[in-house]
Amino acid sequence: MRANEREAHQKREVEIIPHYIKHPEGSVLISFGDTKVICSASVEERVPPFLRGKGQGWITAEYAMLPRATSQRNIRESSKGKVAGRTMEIQRLIGRALRSVVDLSKLGERTIWVDCDVIQADGGTRTAAVSGAFVAVGLAVSELLEKEKLKENPINGFLAALSVGMTDSGKAILDLDYKEDSTADVDMNVVMKSGGRLVEVQGTGEEATFSRRELNEMLDLAEDGIEELFAIQKEILGDFGEKLSLIEEGQKTNAT
Amino acid sequence: MRANEREAHQKREVEIIPHYIKHPEGSVLISFGDTKVICSASVEERVPPFLRGKGQGWITAEYAMLPRATSQRNIRESSKGKVAGRTMEIQRLIGRALRSVVDLSKLGERTIWVDCDVIQADGGTRTAAVSGAFVAVGLAVSELLEKEKLKENPINGFLAALSVGMTDSGKAILDLDYKEDSTADVDMNVVMKSGGRLVEVQGTGEEATFSRRELNEMLDLAEDGIEELFAIQKEILGDFGEKLSLIEEGQKTNAT
Amino acid sequence: MRANEREAHQKREVEIIPHYIKHPEGSVLISFGDTKVICSASVEERVPPFLRGKGQGWITAEYAMLPRATSQRNIRESSKGKVAGRTMEIQRLIGRALRSVVDLSKLGERTIWVDCDVIQADGGTRTAAVSGAFVAVGLAVSELLEKEKLKENPINGFLAALSVGMTDSGKAILDLDYKEDSTADVDMNVVMKSGGRLVEVQGTGEEATFSRRELNEMLDLAEDGIEELFAIQKEILGDFGEKLSLIEEGQKTNAT
Amino acid sequence: MRANEREAHQKREVEIIPHYIKHPEGSVLISFGDTKVICSASVEERVPPFLRGKGQGWITAEYAMLPRATSQRNIRESSKGKVAGRTMEIQRLIGRALRSVVDLSKLGERTIWVDCDVIQADGGTRTAAVSGAFVAVGLAVSELLEKEKLKENPINGFLAALSVGMTDSGKAILDLDYKEDSTADVDMNVVMKSGGRLVEVQGTGEEATFSRRELNEMLDLAEDGIEELFAIQKEILGDFGEKLSLIEEGQKTNAT
Amino acid sequence: MRANEREAHQKREVEIIPHYIKHPEGSVLISFGDTKVICSASVEERVPPFLRGKGQGWITAEYAMLPRATSQRNIRESSKGKVAGRTMEIQRLIGRALRSVVDLSKLGERTIWVDCDVIQADGGTRTAAVSGAFVAVGLAVSELLEKEKLKENPINGFLAALSVGMTDSGKAILDLDYKEDSTADVDMNVVMKSGGRLVEVQGTGEEATFSRRELNEMLDLAEDGIEELFAIQKEILGDFGEKLSLIEEGQKTNAT
Amino acid sequence: MRANEREAHQKREVEIIPHYIKHPEGSVLISFGDTKVICSASVEERVPPFLRGKGQGWITAEYAMLPRATSQRNIRESSKGKVAGRTMEIQRLIGRALRSVVDLSKLGERTIWVDCDVIQADGGTRTAAVSGAFVAVGLAVSELLEKEKLKENPINGFLAALSVGMTDSGKAILDLDYKEDSTADVDMNVVMKSGGRLVEVQGTGEEATFSRRELNEMLDLAEDGIEELFAIQKEILGDFGEKLSLIEEGQKTNAT
Repeated sequence: MRANEREAHQKREVEIIPHYIKHPEGSVLISFGDTKVICSASVEERVPPFLRGKGQGWITAEYAMLPRATSQRNIRESSKGKVAGRTMEIQRLIGRALRSVVDLSKLGERTIWVDCDVIQADGGTRTAAVSGAFVAVGLAVSELLEKEKLKENPINGFLAALSVGMTDSGKAILDLDYKEDSTADVDMNVVMKSGGRLVEVQGTGEEATFSRRELNEMLDLAEDGIEELFAIQKEILGDFGEKLSLIEEGQKTNAT
Repeated sequence: MRANEREAHQKREVEIIPHYIKHPEGSVLISFGDTKVICSASVEERVPPFLRGKGQGWITAEYAMLPRATSQRNIRESSKGKVAGRTMEIQRLIGRALRSVVDLSKLGERTIWVDCDVIQADGGTRTAAVSGAFVAVGLAVSELLEKEKLKENPINGFLAALSVGMTDSGKAILDLDYKEDSTADVDMNVVMKSGGRLVEVQGTGEEATFSRRELNEMLDLAEDGIEELFAIQKEILGDFGEKLSLIEEGQKTNAT
Repeated sequence: MRANEREAHQKREVEIIPHYIKHPEGSVLISFGDTKVICSASVEERVPPFLRGKGQGWITAEYAMLPRATSQRNIRESSKGKVAGRTMEIQRLIGRALRSVVDLSKLGERTIWVDCDVIQADGGTRTAAVSGAFVAVGLAVSELLEKEKLKENPINGFLAALSVGMTDSGKAILDLDYKEDSTADVDMNVVMKSGGRLVEVQGTGEEATFSRRELNEMLDLAEDGIEELFAIQKEILGDFGEKLSLIEEGQKTNAT
Repeated sequence: MRANEREAHQKREVEIIPHYIKHPEGSVLISFGDTKVICSASVEERVPPFLRGKGQGWITAEYAMLPRATSQRNIRESSKGKVAGRTMEIQRLIGRALRSVVDLSKLGERTIWVDCDVIQADGGTRTAAVSGAFVAVGLAVSELLEKEKLKENPINGFLAALSVGMTDSGKAILDLDYKEDSTADVDMNVVMKSGGRLVEVQGTGEEATFSRRELNEMLDLAEDGIEELFAIQKEILGDFGEKLSLIEEGQKTNAT
Repeated sequence: MRANEREAHQKREVEIIPHYIKHPEGSVLISFGDTKVICSASVEERVPPFLRGKGQGWITAEYAMLPRATSQRNIRESSKGKVAGRTMEIQRLIGRALRSVVDLSKLGERTIWVDCDVIQADGGTRTAAVSGAFVAVGLAVSELLEKEKLKENPINGFLAALSVGMTDSGKAILDLDYKEDSTADVDMNVVMKSGGRLVEVQGTGEEATFSRRELNEMLDLAEDGIEELFAIQKEILGDFGEKLSLIEEGQKTNAT
Repeated sequence: MRANEREAHQKREVEIIPHYIKHPEGSVLISFGDTKVICSASVEERVPPFLRGKGQGWITAEYAMLPRATSQRNIRESSKGKVAGRTMEIQRLIGRALRSVVDLSKLGERTIWVDCDVIQADGGTRTAAVSGAFVAVGLAVSELLEKEKLKENPINGFLAALSVGMTDSGKAILDLDYKEDSTADVDMNVVMKSGGRLVEVQGTGEEATFSRRELNEMLDLAEDGIEELFAIQKEILGDFGEKLSLIEEGQKTNAT
């Protein structure tokens, strides 16, 4: 049995507090159990040099942890003078994932800077960050639409992520906490877009390896859990969430 | 009249939430109005090289802001690869101030790392950080005493800080918010220890200058405001706060 | 039809030149078509601090490209003073992958430093690097065994990698060259261990997304191609390759 | 009794050699006893980006010590690749202080770069730097006026600084040398503008604290000592010094 | 006797493989015995800021070694975050040397970036780099001429380099390998232009010193060896090499 | 005719002020005309890691310029966060040169750190630095001998340096000032040890090249000028200088 009597397919309690800090165009505090991440979306009215004059926008993400978000204090990356490989990997993942649900050509020549700052960590910080970042971006875009800075909604689906893993007894489990993560044989992060589409699959077996069957078992768990996250996101996003669902429905209908 | 109908001598609403994050030995979320800082105190069972073998402890502090704590997003110091001068100035101030109320020889060969991370900024982040950091250290020390890792309380007084300034109409005001701070002629940060002792006085008139009379006027405001902070800190620290007050009383009596 | 009349399931021509440079304990020049990587394995008789005294070894990898390995010259990372996120991602992948086929407890307190330097790039540099690095490590280990510095072979399987992708016309293709890679909708890197075990699956759809069915289609292609790489590796490794195959056989038998 | 038979209120011997190096528009070698600082003022015909097009100038300062300015050799900041917190604090102080006596709107779109390089240190390097930097800037401005690059004198008062401290026997002393500084309980740097105006007050009690009465005692000492520095500066600046004094007089008269 | 039965005046076997990598406008793999360097010349259609609008071109060089080019693995300069002094010295030498045989005013507003990457080191890497870099630049220029991007050949002579040294028995030897280099008393690098002109002479006696007579002895050896390199370069450069020789002849005739 | 009516073979006026700053074991201010360099020698009672336990000493040098030592202000290397290639080249040269006249095995396990800080530059800063650094080291060694920290004098000759160049009219000139240096065709720095031994010869013709005859002409000029520097150094070093001369004589006699 897992901690807090969780079943293998159960994710931890998820909470999303919108408008958590006042300055950003969009912001949330997202919790996956004891993992807590402040996600903010800042709109800047220009694009990076490589996109200038192309009439499209950009979304980029940065990720960090407070030094004592973890059980041992970490040295700040600003003190070390460089960003760790793990940090870069995560922030690149968040940025790519967000760009997969936003039509950059509809964003205009602006950049959305997403900041995911982990204030408390207990496993799954990157999946919480992706899932929270999507809502922060949603809030920012919704504000841009209201203020008529955007004419058309550039977001074309919900986006959320969960981790899955294989325990050493060969059981697939969903949304690993830190303790589970440190002992799991295989660790996989799955990012999905609503409509059952995969955005990113990163499965890693550092000391163990995994079979195709196990891969599919883990993906099944992830898929179901992520659907639940979409429902929470929709509720938090209110009217804008409703509209996104309709787009989604429309796409399914079109696809039929 | 100031924003929110504040009088010149009124500080903003102060809130201190203890045990705000779970991993650090001590932590708070402190708010001075819209300025919100997570302060954590992490105990490490060793001292920096320059103190090894001297039988005493050390307290050091780091300060940072989330990129979008402010109205314009700032580039992360980790991305820039270096820590700004302002940041260094503030973290050196916090560390020095904390060391003035802790008897390092009673701390044993351990370091308390204090992290002050501003999640929302509206002026006075360094004074909120000092005032919150003291409580975080108090909580950590109180835990060390309970667990009998420390035999004797090394803290010998309360510590808090407030900013004061002179408006361009020559009026002294307490606890400036961001807007007041940007237009004030003189900006002063005052750190005090209970018992009416000054720990740090930093008065700066970048475009204006100030007289000895104005300096004293500002110090009067700061002194009264800081006494109120001591009362809040005492309450949050509970039993440990009570004991600190008694030490304070005893010192006064001895001094008589 | 693909360039050079390749079929969707055909990988490019693979060449592995062993002992390509004289100083390292193991080295190869591996080519996947026009992609050429020098992989070297350097044995150092000590382990990083976090492993000292634990009686086990370590394998770590670094990856770089010559400035003009690509069609546009890139600024050297040493001139920029920092390592790019992409580079970190790749070198972490190579290190993790190699550790999944080496029993570190049988390596003794030594580190194998793997250097993968791309001298010419045409897509698939990371998969070529993983596949060549394995052979370089194999040559180094084989030398350590011959010199009796190692008593037991710590390698327990072959390791190779290939990229797969989905073209915009929805077709899965194997081992993408640079041009295919830049236009593909989905890009996936698959690292496998002999015996049909997955080591790492990294599928990314930056602008597109992919379905479970497409994921499986791509994995099928990768699996077959990687089996062919194992055969080439085995031949290059000579006697040592033969022995590795037998271990593999044994494991299968045991598993039965 | 202090070293060299100094009384508590006596500053060390002060020497200012103007035009000490030939390239800068203004330069001095200033000595406070054994503390020697080369201060130079370099005029650049443009302003930093944040001021472009605003029709005003800028003054900024940098501070450094030769590696063996001190009794123990220090590692160069260029070798360490970063500037220490103490250095940043000091150079920010010098820049702010100079800007408080210069009307930037009368400077035109130019920057004055002030460099303070300590060639020999014996306490009080930052106060010597401020006091010498003012003269270097005065010389540079005086040259700009002579060459008619400036139409109007932007400097509106003298500027100088001294340190004061409390010894452990509770006595206030002026202009501490290195040995006094290391044993003092309280250390305060006072920057003043002629006319009795405070520009910067930085009082710090790392291990001790100080009372309001002690603060005032220290400020009294500083005020008298700084008046003496103004007289020396005036003499060195010759005609330009005379004119500055008259401005000063005029301001007093106006104020009456 | 030297290794491989070399005489004092004999250089090692030299091999130059042109067009070694496919992307650069010019590239070679040059070997001086076991020293192997990939030299590439990349043409960029712009010049550095300090040359903009001056109607001339620029040539600059970078030099690096693969971590395991040497018998002990070196830490990558990108990991250290800074370029070593030795590296800078060498790349500045290569750039200067190339600029001495190219008429930058005939190059147009373009930059030739030369990259010399040592893949295997056995002494003399800088002289091999200079000699190979010249051929890479020759190939690039020859291509620019063919494509009519250049109207006139900007190269006015061959350029090559060799090391010479004094053994501890006082004998001058040519083209030292690593072992010879580590034990030689004096180490000198000579860069020459065809026509017997010296471009760069760098003689260094770290532990020993040398006389004028010894200097001349070493220069004699270098001069003869470098003439042989010119012949090899000429052959590799084919038609373009022939033309260069004629220019050379012409210059001699003119000089007569 | 040269500036200040100098003849081609005349060096500028040389001044060496010993004990220029008080903390270092040895220090001078050396002037070659308007070029002024503070050279200090700091003795540290330990050696760098690569020499530990080998019973010998080490000498290393660092070189820097004040930002406004030159006619245009340069950005500080500490602000840029890295040391320029030119700086590295020069400080490596100074260190090597000093080591050529000091018997490190007689120095004991100590390091002499030499700092050469240019306070005013007008060409020839590296040759002034070498020549002044030698005297600073001489003063430091002389003190170590007096204090009996050293039993035997490790210095075995004088060391000085001068620049020579070829003007565009093909005339060799000695000790170039900044203006001459910028227009010279060939620039050469010569470091010599007393007794007519060459320590370092660095001749560079960036845009021009030079013949063997010209090289010898320049060396003749340098040799004579450096002999004059030896005489000045001897005088400044007093008794210690006398003794050094005797050693020199002795060596000549022995050599006969």
